[in-house]
This record gives sequence, structure tokens and C-alpha cells, in this order.
Amino acid sequence: MKYFIANWKMNMSLKDIVSWLEEFSKLELKQDLNRHIIICPSFPHLSLLKEVSGKIGFEVGAQDLSMFEKGAHTGETGNFQLKELVNYCIVGHSERKESVDTVIIKKDLCIKAGIIPLVCFVDKKDLTKLDTKGVILCWEDPNNISKDGVYREKNPLDIAKEMREIKERVSKETVIIYGGSVNRENIKSLNEIKEIDGVLVGNAGLDPNHFADIINTAI
Amino acid sequence: MKYFIANWKMNMSLKDIVSWLEEFSKLELKQDLNRHIIICPSFPHLSLLKEVSGKIGFEVGAQDLSMFEKGAHTGETGNFQLKELVNYCIVGHSERKESVDTVIIKKDLCIKAGIIPLVCFVDKKDLTKLDTKGVILCWEDPNNISKDGVYREKNPLDIAKEMREIKERVSKETVIIYGGSVNRENIKSLNEIKEIDGVLVGNAGLDPNHFADIINTAI
Repeated sequence: MKYFIANWKMNMSLKDIVSWLEEFSKLELKQDLNRHIIICPSFPHLSLLKEVSGKIGFEVGAQDLSMFEKGAHTGETGNFQLKELVNYCIVGHSERKESVDTVIIKKDLCIKAGIIPLVCFVDKKDLTKLDTKGVILCWEDPNNISKDGVYREKNPLDIAKEMREIKERVSKETVIIYGGSVNRENIKSLNEIKEIDGVLVGNAGLDPNHFADIINTAI
Repeated sequence: MKYFIANWKMNMSLKDIVSWLEEFSKLELKQDLNRHIIICPSFPHLSLLKEVSGKIGFEVGAQDLSMFEKGAHTGETGNFQLKELVNYCIVGHSERKESVDTVIIKKDLCIKAGIIPLVCFVDKKDLTKLDTKGVILCWEDPNNISKDGVYREKNPLDIAKEMREIKERVSKETVIIYGGSVNRENIKSLNEIKEIDGVLVGNAGLDPNHFADIINTAI
């Protein structure tokens, strides 16, 4: 497992981020040259994260982008603006309720701008449309997502079985990320599933200690 | 007329912004202590604009905000994040095609966070719902918006008549901004309409010289 992606969603204020960075930079992380730690803050915080990323040792991703290229789209952020700030961008997260067609347009705009799209999917039937050269696919496991604040852990054997099904449907080179209530408890069993190349972390990524525990357990 | 709002929409890269700022800061602006120059860039550029705003002499506004308060809303930017960066926020711009109910929720979230909402409306029938204490209302004149790249100037007497109708429907204190292909040619006649408290500038705001001409003509 080599990708550790924190999706901060709409949770962090500037003050929260400053505390997070201070704490995270003090923590001992096991070293691994192949490891990618990717932090995805809200749009207004991308430039701050980019500024400190090299020193602290992570990369930066956006949480979304516009499906348009440029122009009269008030409130949207385009690929040409993001490429100056990030290497990655989450695309099609289930919370955004976007159609597969929209996700495909956004993924292609990322690739066009040299941004690696972290393309989220819930349903395996969409895989063939989404798996193109240069994408990272993130499976938002629908049976392992907290619902109404309740989390019910899924059997790791079932996760492994489904990950194998996913791997069989995509190109050999495609990186597959697992997303589904990843935390310091379940990371150990997830790490044993060799089909998982990394994890997309939600809530646990808001706590620098918790996020570092996940990384250190998996390396 | 005392409000000059540039909505940059999704047009500016960081490089474009640096050039814009360099050029704008060299221009001679007529002084007026009551004047508000408000620049609304894309989310990722808010912090840069905020940083230089005091020195150059403008205020900063966002182009949109989430209709949710905080939490699992990947790709959204919330009022608690914006209040650290801006004093204003455009809400309900026609390009976003939002329902009046959504616009009302967003406007109220701005006010709750101490951000002045620049509430856009096209249809005058929505006015009674939108005109609450603390808002600035921006009329996106549907008959004076460039369509398919073609701009047909509207008779200033017709604009004046409609502005009077708007003023009659809202509270006496409410600031009313005019938005509709504002440029260095039509600003002179708009400035003579006493019901207009300011202008929301689109394309012309992308050129610092053009924007400064609008400001200097109106003061």
C-alpha cells in the first residue's frame, strides 16, 4: 500500500489547518520512498497547503473541479487554475452526486491539465468507462461507509473478494484506492489485501495522529 | 455610486492575477472614502487577494458558498471557511442556476458568519424574499446581458425605470447593485441613475485599465 489520501471535505478552518500541520510535522512517520501522502483541503486552502507541502512531506490534491474549461462560470474552479496548485484532484466523489458522464468529462480535464484524477466510483459497472490511462481509481465501498453516523465494519474477506473483481475489470497498471471508513483499527486487515494500492481516508484524516497511525501501520 | 464589484468568474490563472495586480496598483484612482472596490476571484485565489488587498486598496469577495454549514461535503466551501478570508460573497449568480430557496439558505449562512451577501436576482418577483437586513442586492438585468457573445445596449431610461420599480419593492436602506454588461461606455449613463448604488462588473473587470476607467468615470 503506497497511497494515503486524506479528504478533508468541508471540515477545516484555517486555524484547524495550522494546528493540524504543526502537529503532523512533529510526528514520526516511517520512511518509504514509494509512499504518497496526499492531502485534499477545500479550495481556499490549496495554496497554503502547497506552500508547506515540500517541507512537511506530502502532496496536495483538490476535492473537485469544474466540468468547464474556462469562462463565465461563477463559483467554479477550473483545471487551468488547479494545475498551478495541485498534482491530484478527487473527481466524482459520491457526496457530489454527479453522473458518470460528468465524472468522465472532469477526469479528462484533469488529465489534459497534467493533474492525476482520483476518480471515485461506487458501482463496479462504471469501471470500464472510468479506467483510462493516467487515472487513479478510488472505490467508495458502499457497504463500508458510515451512514447516519453509524459504522458497521465489513468483513475483510468480502472486501478482498470485491477488490479482486475490480482488479480483473481494469488495466493492469491502474492504481486502485480503497475508501470506506478507513481508520486505525481496520487498516491492518486492509493492508493485507494485496489488491489495495492505497486508502482514501475521510474522518480519520482530520486528526493528524490518527492519520499518521494509519500510514505507519500500513508501511 | 459607491460599489464597484469585479466578478472574475472562472477566468484568471495565478499568473493572470499577478499581472492584474501589478497593473492595477500602478493606476491612478480618484479618491473617495465612501467607495468600495470588491474583487471576487475563484476560491483558490482568495488568500492571495486578501493578502495584498489592504496595500492596493480593495476588499475581497467569494463567488459562491456551500448551502451546508460544515462536514461531509466534498468540494464545497463553507461560510466558516470564507469568513476567515472575505467580507463579501456573491450568492445565487444566474450562471449557477440555483433555486430561490437555495439562494435564501446561502444568504442567511453569509449573514450568520458576518459576511455581506451580494445576492443576485434576475426576476423582480423574488425581491421580497431576498431583501432582508444586511444584504446587498445585485440585479442581473436579463435584457442587458451579453448573449452568445452579442451585446445589445439597453436604453438607460428603461434601466432607470426598472431600477425605480426595484427600489420601491425593497427596504429603504438596501443597497442595490446593477449588473448587466457594465463597461467604460455605458458607465456614464448608469452613473446618472441615482437608484443605482454600484455595479457588478463581469468581463470588463478582467482588464485592470478597463475596471479603473469604470471606477474613475463613476466617481
